[in-house]
Amino acid sequence: MKPVPLSEIIEAIGGSYAGPRELGIVHIRPLRDAGPEDLSFLSNPKYQPLLSETRAAAILVGRDVEGDDPRFIRVGDPYLALATILQTWFAHVPGPEEISPRAEIASSARLGDGVAVGPNAVIGENAVIGARVRIHAGAVIGAEVRIGDDTVIYPNATVYHRCIVGRRCIIHSGAVIGADGYGFATSGGRHHKIPQVGIVRIEDDVEVGANTTIDRAALGETVVGEGTKIDNLVMIAHNVRIGRHCLIVAQTGIAGSTEIGDGCVFGGQSGAAGHLRIASGVQVAAQAAVMKDAPEKITLAGSPARPLREFLRSQALVGRLPDLLKRIERLEEERRDK
Amino acid sequence: MKPVPLSEIIEAIGGSYAGPRELGIVHIRPLRDAGPEDLSFLSNPKYQPLLSETRAAAILVGRDVEGDDPRFIRVGDPYLALATILQTWFAHVPGPEEISPRAEIASSARLGDGVAVGPNAVIGENAVIGARVRIHAGAVIGAEVRIGDDTVIYPNATVYHRCIVGRRCIIHSGAVIGADGYGFATSGGRHHKIPQVGIVRIEDDVEVGANTTIDRAALGETVVGEGTKIDNLVMIAHNVRIGRHCLIVAQTGIAGSTEIGDGCVFGGQSGAAGHLRIASGVQVAAQAAVMKDAPEKITLAGSPARPLREFLRSQALVGRLPDLLKRIERLEEERRDK
Amino acid sequence: MKPVPLSEIIEAIGGSYAGPRELGIVHIRPLRDAGPEDLSFLSNPKYQPLLSETRAAAILVGRDVEGDDPRFIRVGDPYLALATILQTWFAHVPGPEEISPRAEIASSARLGDGVAVGPNAVIGENAVIGARVRIHAGAVIGAEVRIGDDTVIYPNATVYHRCIVGRRCIIHSGAVIGADGYGFATSGGRHHKIPQVGIVRIEDDVEVGANTTIDRAALGETVVGEGTKIDNLVMIAHNVRIGRHCLIVAQTGIAGSTEIGDGCVFGGQSGAAGHLRIASGVQVAAQAAVMKDAPEKITLAGSPARPLREFLRSQALVGRLPDLLKRIERLEEERRDK
Repeated sequence: MKPVPLSEIIEAIGGSYAGPRELGIVHIRPLRDAGPEDLSFLSNPKYQPLLSETRAAAILVGRDVEGDDPRFIRVGDPYLALATILQTWFAHVPGPEEISPRAEIASSARLGDGVAVGPNAVIGENAVIGARVRIHAGAVIGAEVRIGDDTVIYPNATVYHRCIVGRRCIIHSGAVIGADGYGFATSGGRHHKIPQVGIVRIEDDVEVGANTTIDRAALGETVVGEGTKIDNLVMIAHNVRIGRHCLIVAQTGIAGSTEIGDGCVFGGQSGAAGHLRIASGVQVAAQAAVMKDAPEKITLAGSPARPLREFLRSQALVGRLPDLLKRIERLEEERRDK
Repeated sequence: MKPVPLSEIIEAIGGSYAGPRELGIVHIRPLRDAGPEDLSFLSNPKYQPLLSETRAAAILVGRDVEGDDPRFIRVGDPYLALATILQTWFAHVPGPEEISPRAEIASSARLGDGVAVGPNAVIGENAVIGARVRIHAGAVIGAEVRIGDDTVIYPNATVYHRCIVGRRCIIHSGAVIGADGYGFATSGGRHHKIPQVGIVRIEDDVEVGANTTIDRAALGETVVGEGTKIDNLVMIAHNVRIGRHCLIVAQTGIAGSTEIGDGCVFGGQSGAAGHLRIASGVQVAAQAAVMKDAPEKITLAGSPARPLREFLRSQALVGRLPDLLKRIERLEEERRDK
Repeated sequence: MKPVPLSEIIEAIGGSYAGPRELGIVHIRPLRDAGPEDLSFLSNPKYQPLLSETRAAAILVGRDVEGDDPRFIRVGDPYLALATILQTWFAHVPGPEEISPRAEIASSARLGDGVAVGPNAVIGENAVIGARVRIHAGAVIGAEVRIGDDTVIYPNATVYHRCIVGRRCIIHSGAVIGADGYGFATSGGRHHKIPQVGIVRIEDDVEVGANTTIDRAALGETVVGEGTKIDNLVMIAHNVRIGRHCLIVAQTGIAGSTEIGDGCVFGGQSGAAGHLRIASGVQVAAQAAVMKDAPEKITLAGSPARPLREFLRSQALVGRLPDLLKRIERLEEERRDK
């Protein structure tokens, strides 16, 4: 691809830089791999030792990083600057640019300006698709679905009938929005299906990872709040309500009807039981299992989850059990010796 | 949609009700959201306080619920009554009503009466599809697959060649039935594939959640018994045999060749090791890991799993470790003081 | 199907056998199910008692198995012999044999000799597909993807743009290769997407299970090394590097940028935190969570993971806590008695 003038990049992100400006940047690469036509960055301090070794042409660093390498571009938040640079010059995703003759679009569906639909994608009856939405190959959008402007649906994702997806959302391949919640009335040892007649409502700026499933409500709505980012293979059960700007890391499961506040973080493979209320700002460690309400901001760990400090203390004491056992044995021996 | 006369509903479920019968019900809604044209219900006692606040026109409640609200419809099992009402009047799922000209159906496949196949669905050679089966857009049914009457396959689900799906089953989007089991012969540090030449056999009335995977047997069959309900993102490995009327909650994994009896319940994110026998009626807590046979009905918890009572006792004692440590220290001090 | 002469089979695997050779083998079946036209095998010693009961015509066993049943075919590794026999005579998978007129292949894509593409499969611009590659129905191969010779892509799998898949790989249904890694720069409580502009590179002879997700790198490559076998519903995050000949069992999650050596084994539902280095040969027990570097070959268990021996000891001592408590109480009583 054509090099991007470094001067343009610096102008866009507003960093301070003392090196030559006539360079052209071909790729953004990590410190270890960057060559003399590449821009790199330091965001995780763990990689600081690589600063002296990298062959990068220029390096985004924080204002507090030591050294005076002329390649440093000092900015307030290198990671955010990186996001801007990538988004502006390096993030083009190939895919549908128009409506494929091999897309199957119901005649009653309404499509906004500039919608692109890939081959073998399907849009059901009365669906309403916002402007500039991009629906990749093989994705299936059910009847009466509403999708907001500028959203992207990747190949082979499925949105069931009547669900609502906001603006600027990204739904990755294999994600399933709106399958039936897991609801049965058990009688005489048999499980009778409770038809799931609610929907999923996803607000603006949400990202849903590959093969994640978000079930439709039994009645009413399963909700994912604005700006929340969900990783791959996550399970959001029926009638869950997730607040705004949460992070739900891969393989997490949230059971039915649980309500989660704003700005929560669930680590990988964590879970929450059903019908809980979890306050804004709660953080849940990887593999933890939240089994009761978390009424205020706290960090939880363990299965079942407890406050992190308590968890760490228990862990440490469990590690010291051999020592405790020895001390008990010594006390017993001394008693016998008397 | 057109309101359903409340009198018809009460007639169908046989509840006792003292209020006005000339009402029409537009939606079924939870207590919190229901309005004056809606029917609601109380199934989980946790929500009892909402009974006085709800604006619902009528409310399904159990016979033992206190109060004499004229809106109460008293029934033996409100949840089961709800299932019946939803199924009868509110559960229509839009989708294929006939065979789409854009479905790809092998000429050797045999289709029963009233089969509906969505656009871009594929049915392979010699497949046998029962009456009234509904195969949604983008689903792929392999060669020689057999599907029983009245089963529904949702968009983008895949059933590999030769697998068998029973009657009245529901297979949600992204589910994969019959991919290869994970079997390798390791020799000289390399893993040689054991071709998986068995099948998956799913009996009648089974539901398989979105993005769940059920692997084909190495030889013989992987079996899911009649009436068993499997949630999303579950992994059933090759040669597993699951009994009848089990509940397998989301993100559970059952390793190869394990046999599970009837009426078992696996909580979310739980697992079972391979080659185990788990008796009918065993219940496994969320995130538990069953590592050995469970020869009789029992509730298991923890990783590795042990009887629930034992697990809870250990958990409690681990929580008391700081106290135990203090008591040991006090004993040691007293000894020194002598 | 036509019986395979037993004499041919024995010739191919080179076992020692004293029984009649004029038999024909119709199926390979487990000991319990095999009939008089079937070949069976003993690989897991757990099933040895079935040897006397089986009706199989011939049985693959190890050289050290006791008994002199004339049906025994003695070989060095019965499981490996089984793999050979199945691969040679019993493993045909029906599917595309040519390019379906209903496949959608970009005119700029280059296809090797003997490529087969099923209906509704999609191949993007400038993709390069090796000889004899078989792409099943509904699979979507993005622009500029490269796929090596003899690889099989099952129905409804997705490979995002620019990713690379090696030779003789098997990608099962619903697998998603190359969706965006989970990377955000958080500023003012909002999460700003870091565009993920790297790729996934899968080396030769890798198998990827159904509904597994392998995310593209933020920059650079996410790598799965030669001969590594990945089970279903596994999550490999961005910039992970997995070595050669590893086994990654179902529902495992490897967080971003972690590097794993050769020949490692991750048990089901296990996980590794991000930015770790895990040495060749490390084994991780089911449900374990690796939270720090593992600089040498070791077996880890528990959450957080620790050396197996330590884990087992802690587990045992936790089980003995009721006893420890009693012993402390007795010491305290004796003290009071004085």
